[in-house]
Amino acid sequence: MLVQKYKDMLGNKSVIRTLSEFAAARGKEIGYENVFDYSLGNPSVPVPGEFTEAMIRLLQEKDSAELHGYSPSLGIYSVREKIAESLKSRFGLPYKAEHIFPTSGAAGAIAHAVRCVSEPGDEILTFAPYFPEYGPYVNLTGAELKVVPADREKFQINFEVFCQMISEKTAAVLINTPNNPSGAVYSEETLKKLAEVLWEKSKEYGQKIYLISDEPYREIIFGGIKAPYVAKYYADTLTCYSFSKSLSLPGERIGYVAVNPACGEAETIVQMCAQISRGIGHNCPSSIIQLAVAETIELTSDLSVYETNMNILHRELTDLGFVCTRPGGTFYIFPKALEEDAVAFCNKALQYDLVLVPGDGFGCPGFFRMAYCIDTEKVERSLPALRKFVESEYR
Amino acid sequence: MLVQKYKDMLGNKSVIRTLSEFAAARGKEIGYENVFDYSLGNPSVPVPGEFTEAMIRLLQEKDSAELHGYSPSLGIYSVREKIAESLKSRFGLPYKAEHIFPTSGAAGAIAHAVRCVSEPGDEILTFAPYFPEYGPYVNLTGAELKVVPADREKFQINFEVFCQMISEKTAAVLINTPNNPSGAVYSEETLKKLAEVLWEKSKEYGQKIYLISDEPYREIIFGGIKAPYVAKYYADTLTCYSFSKSLSLPGERIGYVAVNPACGEAETIVQMCAQISRGIGHNCPSSIIQLAVAETIELTSDLSVYETNMNILHRELTDLGFVCTRPGGTFYIFPKALEEDAVAFCNKALQYDLVLVPGDGFGCPGFFRMAYCIDTEKVERSLPALRKFVESEYR
Repeated sequence: MLVQKYKDMLGNKSVIRTLSEFAAARGKEIGYENVFDYSLGNPSVPVPGEFTEAMIRLLQEKDSAELHGYSPSLGIYSVREKIAESLKSRFGLPYKAEHIFPTSGAAGAIAHAVRCVSEPGDEILTFAPYFPEYGPYVNLTGAELKVVPADREKFQINFEVFCQMISEKTAAVLINTPNNPSGAVYSEETLKKLAEVLWEKSKEYGQKIYLISDEPYREIIFGGIKAPYVAKYYADTLTCYSFSKSLSLPGERIGYVAVNPACGEAETIVQMCAQISRGIGHNCPSSIIQLAVAETIELTSDLSVYETNMNILHRELTDLGFVCTRPGGTFYIFPKALEEDAVAFCNKALQYDLVLVPGDGFGCPGFFRMAYCIDTEKVERSLPALRKFVESEYR
Repeated sequence: MLVQKYKDMLGNKSVIRTLSEFAAARGKEIGYENVFDYSLGNPSVPVPGEFTEAMIRLLQEKDSAELHGYSPSLGIYSVREKIAESLKSRFGLPYKAEHIFPTSGAAGAIAHAVRCVSEPGDEILTFAPYFPEYGPYVNLTGAELKVVPADREKFQINFEVFCQMISEKTAAVLINTPNNPSGAVYSEETLKKLAEVLWEKSKEYGQKIYLISDEPYREIIFGGIKAPYVAKYYADTLTCYSFSKSLSLPGERIGYVAVNPACGEAETIVQMCAQISRGIGHNCPSSIIQLAVAETIELTSDLSVYETNMNILHRELTDLGFVCTRPGGTFYIFPKALEEDAVAFCNKALQYDLVLVPGDGFGCPGFFRMAYCIDTEKVERSLPALRKFVESEYR
């Protein structure tokens, strides 16, 4: 018999996906360049030329059986070494290859991390607003995702409610900074306080509570500031990374789990990931992609366009009277809608060819997300539409 | 807390992997060219030049944001179309793109297929000798892999025991033809009889028993014969394929699930696969690899070396008095060991720098596997060692 729980999921179509499909369909009518599509978080800037060159060089120069052969079940060692060295030099933690497990993006990394530390019946806590895919990532393991309501002012952590919700059932806490959808970067203060709570509660319950840190936007930080590196503040941290955004490679499915060297049994956790992989049929990212990413590990795409777009949008939104926390990173902004029902608000916006995503799916009703990973020229062209929308509907 | 079931797996090191590591270490002592390493099923022939050319062309000509962008959660539609067309033209079943779900190799395909049709507590039956990774593929879903003992004569199906083992708990039957490790190809007679049993039992139990057909060796067939296409014989077949062997791409993790168009709810099953993917963090194979494979879908590497090697080894083994079913395909041969304990037999062989894998891990003690995906020249050089081993130890 076909398994009902997966069949049941078929009805629940992703809101983001539906809006993106609307944008594509509307684009066929009026030209996609005239649809102000802020729905999807697909990087808009090209990969660094060095990545393409590395790929071509590998294809031309390396023995094909070796290049395309099985990678070891823990990933290609030299790749793991380069990732570890890069993390060590950038963030000062003594990572070694043995702490790194390459995965198919951050999705794969989270899937492995959750399976390492939780059993069916356990709870994983996350903080709104949160990436909606955390639902299936966690719930399909048999553990349960519990969402701590948002700090609706600054999108840091609502510690009061968090401390009420954490319990002996909490296997791990899953955070995302810089945050999709709010663009907020957790401050050092937030991370220190979070670590304190986790230490205290781990001690109280006599069992470790792990921190799973989802960091695909780590390299997209605005204002020249340095975002605090999460694992520095809490030993039992499993960092989940993706090169999707930093190198504009979302389709190539490449990322990793990095287990903090200070975490108990850190190397064992990495080896457990390889066992988990056997069960989920993952078996390493593509070998050529692993090798090419290792060669360009210190590079990023030209990410400056995202900051340019953010500045334009933040200024305009504020001008128009939106309550809008200034993003510290990512390519998202998360203003408060101009009416309580953000779904109604976003539906009205569609009439102005503005494709905005209501915050409801991110666990934060009343807000909406704009993904500004689009050309600056289009952001600028969208401003009159945004103004017209606000003035016609809300003045 | 770290999850015990994965920690427990760390002790159980793969025998094949251990032997392969022995071969590598011994190679450092005497030169790897002098180690007759028949342990690993890693293709030895290069990828077709057209594949490399397609990759380079994509990298040079396609817009990078499009090339490396997210593929849809069901895989790239044009790729699914090409796979469907190829299957349709080769095997005559009316596949459409909607029946195809691209995966990370056959491992990923099986991981999805098993999750589509079985729940924890269900049983999946397979036939010895079988690929040992079926254990984790199935058991880590919560279902249980049950192994029907081998037909030790021809490595077809032991129907007598199979009919005793099939029950209302059987969610699916998992087969592998051409077979790793025996090299046997299931005959039309075997497949017809299997289909009959499955029909009958599905009817008797009032629930479908699915057939999961693992076919990574489909293109490696000897003697110019055509292997029967499994899905033709049973409507409710989920075909799991990998391009690892046909295009020598095991490290690139590319394959698919093809659901027989005649299977009930075929398109729903493919959509369920996309939901399963969300939970296991798979999210499609690498996009450039999907596109390059689609461009070379009708090609294979030069697979003839495997038949050449098989002929040499089969002749020599038979000459030396081994009982040895002639493989119909794959790059494996599975002779009976010259003593009851195949582990002891393979350990003795190591003294002659012959790396053979005992059949115990394949659910078929008393036999051993040789993976002859190595250069023909090396196969020939291994014959004196084989002869010396047999004559010194067993004459």
